[in-house]
Parts: sequence; C-alpha cells; structure tokens
Amino acid sequence: MTPAPAHNKPRIVIIGCGFGGLEAARTLRRADVDITLIDRTNHHLFQPLLYQVATAGLSAPAIAAPVRHLFRDQPNVTTLLGEVSTVDAAARQVTLADGLVLGYDHLIVAAGATHSYFGRDEWEQHAPGLKTLDDAFEIRRRLLLAFEEAEKQDDPVLRAAWLNFVVIGGGPTGVEMAGTMAEIARHTLSGEFRRIDPATARIILLEGGPRVLQAMPQSLSERATEQLRKLGVDVRLDARVTSIDGTRVQVQSGSSAGQTYDIETRCVVWAAGVAASPLGKQLAAQLGLETDRAGRLAVLPDLSLPGRPEISVIGDLAAAKSHEPGGGEPRSVPGVSPGAKQMGRCAAANILRRIQGNQTVAFHYKDYGNLATIGRNAAVVDLVSPLGNFRFSGYPAWLFWLFAHIYFLIGFRNRIVVLIDWASAYWSKQRYARVIADLSDQAPAHQPPHRPTQPTQL
Amino acid sequence: MTPAPAHNKPRIVIIGCGFGGLEAARTLRRADVDITLIDRTNHHLFQPLLYQVATAGLSAPAIAAPVRHLFRDQPNVTTLLGEVSTVDAAARQVTLADGLVLGYDHLIVAAGATHSYFGRDEWEQHAPGLKTLDDAFEIRRRLLLAFEEAEKQDDPVLRAAWLNFVVIGGGPTGVEMAGTMAEIARHTLSGEFRRIDPATARIILLEGGPRVLQAMPQSLSERATEQLRKLGVDVRLDARVTSIDGTRVQVQSGSSAGQTYDIETRCVVWAAGVAASPLGKQLAAQLGLETDRAGRLAVLPDLSLPGRPEISVIGDLAAAKSHEPGGGEPRSVPGVSPGAKQMGRCAAANILRRIQGNQTVAFHYKDYGNLATIGRNAAVVDLVSPLGNFRFSGYPAWLFWLFAHIYFLIGFRNRIVVLIDWASAYWSKQRYARVIADLSDQAPAHQPPHRPTQPTQL
Repeated sequence: MTPAPAHNKPRIVIIGCGFGGLEAARTLRRADVDITLIDRTNHHLFQPLLYQVATAGLSAPAIAAPVRHLFRDQPNVTTLLGEVSTVDAAARQVTLADGLVLGYDHLIVAAGATHSYFGRDEWEQHAPGLKTLDDAFEIRRRLLLAFEEAEKQDDPVLRAAWLNFVVIGGGPTGVEMAGTMAEIARHTLSGEFRRIDPATARIILLEGGPRVLQAMPQSLSERATEQLRKLGVDVRLDARVTSIDGTRVQVQSGSSAGQTYDIETRCVVWAAGVAASPLGKQLAAQLGLETDRAGRLAVLPDLSLPGRPEISVIGDLAAAKSHEPGGGEPRSVPGVSPGAKQMGRCAAANILRRIQGNQTVAFHYKDYGNLATIGRNAAVVDLVSPLGNFRFSGYPAWLFWLFAHIYFLIGFRNRIVVLIDWASAYWSKQRYARVIADLSDQAPAHQPPHRPTQPTQL
Repeated sequence: MTPAPAHNKPRIVIIGCGFGGLEAARTLRRADVDITLIDRTNHHLFQPLLYQVATAGLSAPAIAAPVRHLFRDQPNVTTLLGEVSTVDAAARQVTLADGLVLGYDHLIVAAGATHSYFGRDEWEQHAPGLKTLDDAFEIRRRLLLAFEEAEKQDDPVLRAAWLNFVVIGGGPTGVEMAGTMAEIARHTLSGEFRRIDPATARIILLEGGPRVLQAMPQSLSERATEQLRKLGVDVRLDARVTSIDGTRVQVQSGSSAGQTYDIETRCVVWAAGVAASPLGKQLAAQLGLETDRAGRLAVLPDLSLPGRPEISVIGDLAAAKSHEPGGGEPRSVPGVSPGAKQMGRCAAANILRRIQGNQTVAFHYKDYGNLATIGRNAAVVDLVSPLGNFRFSGYPAWLFWLFAHIYFLIGFRNRIVVLIDWASAYWSKQRYARVIADLSDQAPAHQPPHRPTQPTQL
C-alpha cells in the first residue's frame, strides 16, 4: 500500500478537470509539487462533441476519458472524485461535499460553467441544457422518445406537437443540435415508422438576436443560416422566448415588443445561456470581489485573484483579458476550449514562477479563429493565421471541422473509434447510439406522458 | 403520413424483443400478417455481453440495436415502445401502461425474466442484478466508485471494506463478472491510484452449490474454478448468503447449517437467481394454469398455452420441453439464447400453420453445447456436434467464445466496433468505457457514502 504523499512539497489543488484544469496539471508534469485534481465526474469530457452524444451519433465513452487514466504516468498528480462545496481562502483549504478537507499552497479554480435560465429556473425541467453526459443522455432520451410517442398518437394535433422540436439559442451548440436533429428526422429514422413520417418533424431554432453564431463574422452567420435552412431547419431570428412549459414555448418575435405566439412541442433544448460555477460567487463574497453578469470573476493579468496571488481562476469561470505582448488595449477571451487550455498553461507556469520567486507573466490569448459545424457536409470556419484570415463554409469547412475535432480528441483509441463511427454514420446516414433507458426508469417529472383517459384502440 | 395498417390481416402481437421475440418477428418476415412488436426499451440487447458493459469494457450502444431499425425493411412489423400492464386472454387484447389497447388474433409472450431474490427483495438495493443496460450502468458505477472511495479513505478498515467485492452466484454471469473484476483490479487500474494498490482488492465469488457452472460437465466446472483462482478470484463453494445490507454480506458455509461469517463490502453483484416476468403469473391466474418455482408457465409441446392455442409463450417465461423427432422422454430446455431463438422460430411457424389451417408441430431444441468465459484468455467450452462432444478450456476456449459472440452480435457495425474494442482492451489491458455519472445525480439510497462526522485531513 502506497502511503499518502508527504506534504513538504508545494501543494497545488486544481478544481475541475475540463480543458483548463487538465492542461494546468499537464503543464506541471515535471514540477516537484504535489497536485490534487478534483472533479465531480471521473472523466474528462470532450465537450465540443457532446452534442453528438445527445443526438445518438456517439457513445459516451468515445468522448470521455477517465481522469486518473490520463494521469497514470504523472506521479505528482492524485486524482479525487468529489464535489467541492467550499473554498476557504483565509484558511487556504478546500472542503468536499463528503467532508474531506484539503489544504493548499496554490489553488487553480477551473470549475467551469453550467446553464443559465436568466432567473427562470423553472424552465430547466422542460428545456434541458447540454453541459454534462447526463444532460446529453436526457436530451437523447427526449429526442428519441418524441418520435416513439408520435407513432403511438391517434390525435393529429398531439402527433404534430410531438414532432415539433425547439432549440433555443443560436450559438454553436444550438446550431449543431438543430442541424443534427434535422438530419435525424430526414435521414436516420427514414422508413422506420409505420404511422408517422419522421421527415415531417419540424426543427425550430429560436435566436433572440438578429443572427446565429454571433461570435463569427456577419458573412459566416448568413452562410450558417442558409445551410441550416437547406437542411430543413426553421431558423427564426429576433425570436425571444417568454415562457416554456411542458407542452409549449411562447415566443415574442420582431425587434419591438410586438407579437407573441406559441409553439406546441414536447421536446425543447436549451442552448441560450451559461452561468459560471457557484464557486465564483462564493469566492467573490469572501474576498470582496465582483462577478460579472455571467457570474465570472475578474482576474488580474496573471490570472490570479486580487489580493490572493495563490488562487488562480481559469476557463469559463474567469472573466480574463488577453494582454498583447506588444501592449495595446487588453481584449476579452472567448469561452472556447483553446482559451481554457491556454489559461491552464499560463496559470500553471505562473505558479512555478511564484514557487521559484520569479515574477508572473500576463496572460496572452493566441486566437486561431473559430469554427462551427451545422450538419452533414455543412460548417463554417473563420481561420486566423499569420497569412491572414481565411473564411470558408460548406463541405470543405465540414471536413476541416471533422479532422480538427478528431485531432484534438483526448486519447488515441477514442480518435480511431470516433472516426469509424463517423465514417459509418456518414455513408449509412445511420446513428448507432440510439439507446434510451428502460421505460420504467423514466422520471415522470421529466417527460409528462400523454395518458389518454379513454383507452385508445389501435 | 402513412395511415395505420388496416386490420383485415391476422394481427400478431409479440411482447418482448429479446432473442425469442426478435426471432419470431423475423420468422414471419414474408407472412401476410400485421405484427406489432412491443418492448419496454427501444433496443434489442445482446445480453451475453452485458457483463462487459457492467465492467466498463464496452459501451452500451455496442450491444444494443434499435428495434425499429432492425425491422425497417420488414413492413409487416410495427414497433411500439411501451410496457405491457395486462393481457386479457378472454378479450384477446393487450393493454400498455400508457393506456393504449391492442387487439390480437395471435399473441407471442416473450417477456423474459428478471432477478429473483428468493423473497428477500430488500437485498436488491444492496446487490443489483444484471439484466438491463440500466443494471449494467449501476454495477459499473458501484464498481468504479468503490475504488474511488477507497482512495479517499484514511481508515484502513474502511479502505479494505471498499476493496472487497462480492459476486453472489456461480453461474455464467457470476463467473464472468468475478473474472473480469479481478482483471480490472490487477491490470486495468494498475498504477492509477496513489494511496491504494487496486491489486489488493479481493473479489469473492459465493456459490451456494458444490460447483460453479452447474449446467456444465463436472470437469469443466473444475477447470473454471481453477482458472478463476489463477486470475485471483476467491471462489467459495457451498457458501450460502443469509443476509445482505449496505456494509456486509453474511455467509453460511459448509454443507451442514454450521458456521456463518461476515464479509465487509460496499459492492455486491447479484447473479444468483432469476424469476420469470410477472405476466406469467397474470396469465396463469386468468387461465387456471400453474407456474413453476421460477414463475415460468408450462406450455404445450407446440409452445401454446393449454386451452389458448392463440397464445404462445417462449424464452425465459416458458417452462418448455424439447421433443425429440424420434420420440423419447421430453427434456427441459435450458434458459440460454439459442433456446429462446429456436422457440421464437417454432412459435412463429406454428402461428403460420394455424392460419393456414394446418397442424402445429412440437418444439425440438437443437443443443449446440454450452460455453462460458471467465476472463482474460480463460473460458470453458462444451461443444455438441455430430462427431461427438468436444470439451476444452483455457486460451482456445476463450478464442472460440470470443468469435462465437462476435459472430452472433446483431448488426455489422457492432461486430467491427466490438472487435476493435476487444483487440485494444486485450493488448493494452485497458477498458475504455470507464464512465460514471455526475456525482450530484447519484441516488444516495443506492450507495450509502461514508460521511465522516469529523473532517478528514488529507
């Protein structure tokens, strides 16, 4: 039995094993420190492909790598499965929900973000978001179940309601979900039902602003909208959701507070807003700091907290700025995985500098551009390179997106299997992960079933 | 929109889409009938490999094929996702839990079996069985979580308790589970923990009878026990479980009602008994029939129920006999997938004979033998062939088992992916599907966590 490591080396605790936390721990691989990596799950999730799990294109293990396996050859890392309930900045310790207390000399908070319903938390049960594997399973279940329920309906109004799918939010997740759902309705399920035609399903993408993919240049937003419409998605811009319940979504359309209308639906996906982990607000309250509207903590240029150089905050929890080496106005860092990874590397390197008594350096975000997939053969790419910006869309962009994502997938095995899955899905138009749980295990609160008071004769 | 099929053709309802139900529907592929196939899940499960999902070797979609996809090219089949609550034999109709009612002219009941705790249903929460994908996820979660909890324990007694794994029942499932769990402890997790050595985990297989794999010849049972012990499994024969709670299993050992002792453990798998679906008892009560100790219905030689020729019962729900073409004493049919498949084929063919006004034929079970895997490079095979019986074990048996199972896997894609997964698992000794759900979603009733009243300083 290996004893617990002695604590004479600097103790570094990292909360969260997303892109930021993982990269920070890897950056410290040769450092003479004791790292404890805490995560609520036992896996690092390749979140850019999570929508593929939600839409039955990939199995969960294809995009989830066990954290302790990733660090098996890095002996200075101890992995703990647990949920951090409090950080005590004064006592320099972290307490887990199961009572375990860990002291630290340096802390990296990389706890990420979750969905935000803009104060309307009652919407969550009707419109799940997509952040964890469990979220993906829940969305997959609702998506597949809606077609099953439609097949059982005799009432054409109810049947149509089960075949209306609403995606709220026109960011990358919303665009990916809507495009893939259209593909499922038109191709994957084709010929498998006897009483409904799945191709009659309506996929409605609601975006509150004037265009989808607002982080992209205007021209690519327009190309994305065109490609979505070609795939059969009903894209509605300037469409703000004012109410969601188990049977309908209420929408206010147009730029003025004008018309509202209802969409009858049983399957809604929330892709509209994220809020930083509650640990942000907790730290802000302790240290007299402010969080922004999304709950993120403003960090110093070196990613540490004001007055607490031993605490760094990275990833979606940090309202970080990129400081150009040549000077100039600092720019905001987008909430994308390269941003989180680069912050993880910078925060870890700054901890080493501090241990060695050196000055820390300011974070600089290297922008490689932006890309989003839309569906079969459809994507948009805005590539930043030393030779200038390249913008392209359609099939070449889709191929570029495909190989970029497979390249960055953690673990060689996953890459191979994901490639095979995709190749087979592409040629067969099939999605192999169409598994939903046993009916008896479905929480009725999640999916109010239509129970006719009179038995329906089929 | 395709209208519901008109009901002038004979209406055949099949309850359950396991090996029996699937084969019955396929046998009727060219028949001029309307088939409705009802299952509680949306997938056909390749149950012989379910233990691989429970032990993180395969992802769920690799062994689960969507039922309606399997029948997309068989237009006489309508697939319904639903749970049958009652069969009304007099009215010839089936009612689903959601209120839907289906009339039938011919009914095949292939509802299968679930775990039986021999009247001790309170054991279920502490010792889940392995029948559905959800069962497999629950066992996978408990198995992986136990090592995580052990890593967090300072108390050596509690740490040892988390590292004791008990498998109850020495049939094929128990033997597979125990062998694979030993492999995980010794190989897969090797080097990944910092405070415990996973190889110190004890895997204890409890068998109430005098030998494991009692359906096999005595010599192969002995070979299996040897191979299990070589893999590091603590095999205890004549060991009957008298009590299970959240912290320990009580065992009575020896052939006389002698000693009892406790095993401290937090992870128990139940592989000891099955009971037929409750639909069996429901039908028995309606028709004045008897069920056997396992809740199975005795069927006539042609697999129909006495007095109800339009109802056939097949698979694990049927106490069926095999009738040799040359006469002789009818023999019991073992509860294995070839048995269920052959019954499905026979019942479907007998329905066609009845529709055509012909005599039905008696069921004859063609026995190809029996095989069980034990773990890495270890299996036992008892092959029945026209040239005689072949019994072998060890590496050749394991290879035979491997290819037999991949051959019978439903769907070409699954076969390829399972082969790749196994090849990679074999060479790397890794298991890629080590994903457990978010901690916050864990039902506390399932896994009583050790919550120290005093914070533990780590």
